[in-house]
Amino acid sequence: MASALQTHQFTIFLVLSHILFLVLIGLFGEYDANTTPNNDATRNELPLASTYPMFQDTHVMIFIGFGFLMTFLKRYGFSAVSINLLLACYTIEWSMIVRGMMESEFTETGKFKIGVVQLLTADFAAAVVLISMGALLGKLSPMQYCVMAFFEVPAAIGAEHLANHFFKINDIGDSIVVHTFGAYFGLACSRAFNNKKYHGHPSEGSVYHSDIFAMIGAIFLWVFWPSFNAAVASPADAKERAVCNTYLSITACTIVTFIMSQALDKHKRFEMVHIANSTLAGGVAIGTIANVVLNPLHALLVGTVAGILSVVGFKFITPLLASKVGVHDTCGVNNLHGMPGVLAGLLSVLFIFIYPEERYGASINDIYSGVKSASNPDGFAYHDQAINQLIGLGIVFGISIVTGLITGTLKIKNEISKCCVQIS
Amino acid sequence: MASALQTHQFTIFLVLSHILFLVLIGLFGEYDANTTPNNDATRNELPLASTYPMFQDTHVMIFIGFGFLMTFLKRYGFSAVSINLLLACYTIEWSMIVRGMMESEFTETGKFKIGVVQLLTADFAAAVVLISMGALLGKLSPMQYCVMAFFEVPAAIGAEHLANHFFKINDIGDSIVVHTFGAYFGLACSRAFNNKKYHGHPSEGSVYHSDIFAMIGAIFLWVFWPSFNAAVASPADAKERAVCNTYLSITACTIVTFIMSQALDKHKRFEMVHIANSTLAGGVAIGTIANVVLNPLHALLVGTVAGILSVVGFKFITPLLASKVGVHDTCGVNNLHGMPGVLAGLLSVLFIFIYPEERYGASINDIYSGVKSASNPDGFAYHDQAINQLIGLGIVFGISIVTGLITGTLKIKNEISKCCVQIS
Amino acid sequence: MASALQTHQFTIFLVLSHILFLVLIGLFGEYDANTTPNNDATRNELPLASTYPMFQDTHVMIFIGFGFLMTFLKRYGFSAVSINLLLACYTIEWSMIVRGMMESEFTETGKFKIGVVQLLTADFAAAVVLISMGALLGKLSPMQYCVMAFFEVPAAIGAEHLANHFFKINDIGDSIVVHTFGAYFGLACSRAFNNKKYHGHPSEGSVYHSDIFAMIGAIFLWVFWPSFNAAVASPADAKERAVCNTYLSITACTIVTFIMSQALDKHKRFEMVHIANSTLAGGVAIGTIANVVLNPLHALLVGTVAGILSVVGFKFITPLLASKVGVHDTCGVNNLHGMPGVLAGLLSVLFIFIYPEERYGASINDIYSGVKSASNPDGFAYHDQAINQLIGLGIVFGISIVTGLITGTLKIKNEISKCCVQIS
Repeated sequence: MASALQTHQFTIFLVLSHILFLVLIGLFGEYDANTTPNNDATRNELPLASTYPMFQDTHVMIFIGFGFLMTFLKRYGFSAVSINLLLACYTIEWSMIVRGMMESEFTETGKFKIGVVQLLTADFAAAVVLISMGALLGKLSPMQYCVMAFFEVPAAIGAEHLANHFFKINDIGDSIVVHTFGAYFGLACSRAFNNKKYHGHPSEGSVYHSDIFAMIGAIFLWVFWPSFNAAVASPADAKERAVCNTYLSITACTIVTFIMSQALDKHKRFEMVHIANSTLAGGVAIGTIANVVLNPLHALLVGTVAGILSVVGFKFITPLLASKVGVHDTCGVNNLHGMPGVLAGLLSVLFIFIYPEERYGASINDIYSGVKSASNPDGFAYHDQAINQLIGLGIVFGISIVTGLITGTLKIKNEISKCCVQIS
Repeated sequence: MASALQTHQFTIFLVLSHILFLVLIGLFGEYDANTTPNNDATRNELPLASTYPMFQDTHVMIFIGFGFLMTFLKRYGFSAVSINLLLACYTIEWSMIVRGMMESEFTETGKFKIGVVQLLTADFAAAVVLISMGALLGKLSPMQYCVMAFFEVPAAIGAEHLANHFFKINDIGDSIVVHTFGAYFGLACSRAFNNKKYHGHPSEGSVYHSDIFAMIGAIFLWVFWPSFNAAVASPADAKERAVCNTYLSITACTIVTFIMSQALDKHKRFEMVHIANSTLAGGVAIGTIANVVLNPLHALLVGTVAGILSVVGFKFITPLLASKVGVHDTCGVNNLHGMPGVLAGLLSVLFIFIYPEERYGASINDIYSGVKSASNPDGFAYHDQAINQLIGLGIVFGISIVTGLITGTLKIKNEISKCCVQIS
Repeated sequence: MASALQTHQFTIFLVLSHILFLVLIGLFGEYDANTTPNNDATRNELPLASTYPMFQDTHVMIFIGFGFLMTFLKRYGFSAVSINLLLACYTIEWSMIVRGMMESEFTETGKFKIGVVQLLTADFAAAVVLISMGALLGKLSPMQYCVMAFFEVPAAIGAEHLANHFFKINDIGDSIVVHTFGAYFGLACSRAFNNKKYHGHPSEGSVYHSDIFAMIGAIFLWVFWPSFNAAVASPADAKERAVCNTYLSITACTIVTFIMSQALDKHKRFEMVHIANSTLAGGVAIGTIANVVLNPLHALLVGTVAGILSVVGFKFITPLLASKVGVHDTCGVNNLHGMPGVLAGLLSVLFIFIYPEERYGASINDIYSGVKSASNPDGFAYHDQAINQLIGLGIVFGISIVTGLITGTLKIKNEISKCCVQIS
């Protein structure tokens, strides 16, 4: 019996999860007003036309971007892109439920809504889990990744809820709640697993073709990052600003990555891992403040710092984490998502002191929803937002480490894990 | 002379076809009002902004999605993506003419219109032919595929015209008129060819890199399927609903595909062919009713059934078709397009009984154009639509089989077919 | 000292460039009105919704399209896609500055604006440089490509400025100012380098997998070309026309490319280089007149001619250029961008005589900004526009050759160039 359970545990776990998702969405989920037939004569295609292309760009980032970026490990390419697909779908369904049940509407009406915006936030939740998967790539079975997602999703959405609900943080491109959380949850998980056998394993490392496949993922992430950061920004000027800031930051970051990669290499060659990963750090670092920055120079400077930080991370911090702290980071998520995410959080504190409140005019509450204004007389003072941003970052960071360690120590046994995603 | 004709038959056939297309479009085609300079002061970019991104997503599906999905055969990757390109272009031009000439406007004015909507429907027609190509992959020469397209396009558009004109079927994501038709036309063609040499041929089967290339195609199809199903939906709420239903169905289908693939494998491994194909069946199965389904649970259930059906198809029905019926299905189109397409058609009957007419309010004729309503007093009763959907499915299925068998028996001789698409 | 300078010249050059870009954008750049918080109650998302998807398609073309198209050289795939990324980013920043400083607003206010339109035009500038890179692929070090870009950007934007400012040319899809300039600048550069060692080098030529990677680039370029040509077109009917004309032209061109490729091959096989390159010539040839052509037949004819020209170019003109003129053209940019670009320019002259002015109605100045009309009483006569188009083409062509030759003869010494982009 125990043996049959072991053999079929993936099937059983996934079937039970899927039934659970169906029951919960069946009981509590319903389409929102925009998605339901109505007799409103003013039916307008603009909201969908404005959101949908950015949603689809994000969708490509999740499934093509993350999926192919993780194909760089030799002999693991097909598995990486397949597990990426499974894990993202698992997270999408589960996160839609968890997020829905945390909303105030659910408390009041017993129902949560689903529409295009919820598809988009489900994609963001998938990003959290896929970033964590990057820290653990090659170490878990498909089932173990799904178990991880089962625990990570409520932790991540709970942390985000705390930061948003109580501290009204601005994190438009999700650098705090997605990138920081995903990276440190995954690294804490990896720490709990700590297994020397992964360090310097012969399968670690890339081969020629796997590098080009990884570049497919990297470049789609690079190209569509402005959509990721701008997708939920409003009003129109903030959306356009989020696009421009991200484009400029990621461009500057790319140039700096090439500089740093060659300067730090003793043979003066570029390292593939920097080109496929550190170039993207500029998108993470500007994420939280993509709707805040009002000056193109500042966006370029953010990208410049991010590029330096990320290459230095790959070169010096990743080996140190492995040897001193016992954290093995397969894809280097600390350098692409972790440190740039924390940088984004700290910059969101700094930029409150760089731009005076007046620069945002009547749209101040579109940026910082909790700040005092004519339409929000009970809000707090503009500069107090800085403290809120810092506390929000701290909460997300702390919860990611603690819940990651707990999840990692669960160490679900899975005898078939080693060979279970091979091509038959 | 005969020999020169044989050597140059591809050139001659394609030159004659291209001249025919130029002459017919020159004589009868003209740009529509949205595409022509006009002095209207209310020129508005919203219609294009609303349609264009979904058109481009569909365009990517046709040329990247189908093209790369068919690269999985070893030593056939480059050919697959090239012939896909040629065949799609051939079909686009030819279908624009055939469809244009079947429209009532052509009968009245002697002209047919071309605009962005016609580019989109030409892409849909290309999908029909590329699905048929999937059933025949590796068996025909490039010229033979084009000859097939020459006959298939009028058959497919004719069948669609019958179903739409006389039975006013709703098939918003084209699961009946594109997926069902394309699959069974191709399979009937393959049956007519029936050649034992393809069964278990050493070139059938995939290699490591070809699998990853195939995943590029599969994932772009997966990601953009909501656009395919929603592209021509209106009004705005129906478009958004088609997006949400497709996203949910394809997500559920993916989870179920992974479950079924492992559960049915004796070594408990995932099969690449399921991951690259069956995951997409959820997009097909929801296609016809993407604008009908009003409850997220129902979309998830549709995807769940589609995933089970498709993996069972690959595992048990494809070998049976080959050994008992003499139908060799190279890409397994019966499992990705055929059976899920028929399922979609049957579900379109079922859902008329699940949702009462009132749920659609004033937009009932946007969904079912022939149903009786305040603005369409001569329409037929709501529940009669169920019969129409069933007849429409039957007509399309029947015509696809008959015309596919006829086309297959034409067996155009082509001595150079075996080697004619190699890289020089 | 000289040796240290040599070892670190890439770092030094790129650091200095990056600092220069930061200083200039810091001093003179600022976000435009659409990107800045404002209290305007009519904030509307339509302009962004209308432009952004086409911008993102173009963005994919630059980074995925050009990047992967150049992966076909064996052992150079990873380098091609990486240098493509670096060079595009370098050009984006530099071109934003150069273009900004040439605008009249800069002369008046001492500031230039940045917004989504400027991101798009920066992408177009990147295309110029990447086309030149195609002519020189495999011959320069990463630093040398950046040095080339440093000189090419002011030359290209200066030429464009002359043609636009003084001759008011219509070049909606940039076939003159991007494709023609980029191709002949690169070829002139290659001529100045003229080095026999590249002719028939064993690394020239492709292998099976590199061909499929190149097709990723080719097909993304193919699919998104309508967006490239239509991105800045207005009003709505001209934008839609640019989409339709490009789609039809590139489709016809593809069919003709397959015909020509087989007809001219003695073994009756398709050549990969034609399929990946000549199919795209239809997008270039219609570029200048994508908003001009009013008849679908004319778009198809343009594509037909472009396909013939491009395959003939690969087959006969490229070898001739190499042996007689001493111009080695690695990617065949003369056949994809050069000759089709010149064809586009000449067609823009011809089509002024094909369509009478009246056909454009009140939108005549949206097409030809300098032509006399009710709102532009001081403009020149409609048929004089033909002379302007011809002069504009001549100016761009002439400047590209001269500045390309000068840039090529600079021959920056770079001892580490041969091995400096390898994967470590």
